[in-house]
Amino acid sequence: MPNPMQDSIQEPALHIIGTVHSDILRIEDAPKFHAESDRIGTLEILPEYQEGLDGVTVGKTIVVLCWFHQADREVLRVHPRGDKSKGLRGVFATRSPMRPNPIAVSELKVLAVDGCRIEVSGLDILDGTPIVDIKNKPEKSS
Amino acid sequence: MPNPMQDSIQEPALHIIGTVHSDILRIEDAPKFHAESDRIGTLEILPEYQEGLDGVTVGKTIVVLCWFHQADREVLRVHPRGDKSKGLRGVFATRSPMRPNPIAVSELKVLAVDGCRIEVSGLDILDGTPIVDIKNKPEKSS
Repeated sequence: MPNPMQDSIQEPALHIIGTVHSDILRIEDAPKFHAESDRIGTLEILPEYQEGLDGVTVGKTIVVLCWFHQADREVLRVHPRGDKSKGLRGVFATRSPMRPNPIAVSELKVLAVDGCRIEVSGLDILDGTPIVDIKNKPEKSS
Repeated sequence: MPNPMQDSIQEPALHIIGTVHSDILRIEDAPKFHAESDRIGTLEILPEYQEGLDGVTVGKTIVVLCWFHQADREVLRVHPRGDKSKGLRGVFATRSPMRPNPIAVSELKVLAVDGCRIEVSGLDILDGTPIVDIKNKPEKSS
């Protein structure tokens, strides 16, 4: 049964729109962020959201939001990039997956689109990670 | 009472970490996106999350994720940027606030930090919008 309180402003509930398929199977194997990755993988979107993909085409860069379902949501300070020599810093000053709302933002290049499946490069995300949003990458204004 | 189902992988619940204070009071007044805005406003973070701000300092660019609580979550096709001459496009190929999970991604410049309050420029977000995350902006790798 859906709980109407989930859609309140206080604690809105996310809809999972799809899943990442990648060859990154362990957190230790994940690139620290997407600018360092040339890995290829597939975003599989649920059929009920396929209509929203109209206009996502080969060659575009998309901004993909994922939910790091394995991340610790209670942590507010981390060693940046896991480097303990750097001392602790607030999670909001880092890209750590640990944070109150573990939403990852990745820029990925579209290599192919086949129905609900988008092949992408630049992947830095664990296999099986839930996807919550895809956006067009904004162009820089001059 | 918290509902344990809210933290399931299927429908994770977001924690609101703060609120945007801006002079953008109506959707019609909002810039279409942040690259076009030089507006100044304040991010007010809840005290229980203040520790996570350690390292957010003047001059940095931060990536701010907000929850567009007024957006229609059922829409999967829109006229890009509201321009009806352009025809409909899937929401995932646009930056429309309407989408299954209406999370806005904005890059804002930090002008001042005072405890739980961060003054920023580049704001494109309605006054009163809930904040769900703040990240360091990744540097471009060469």
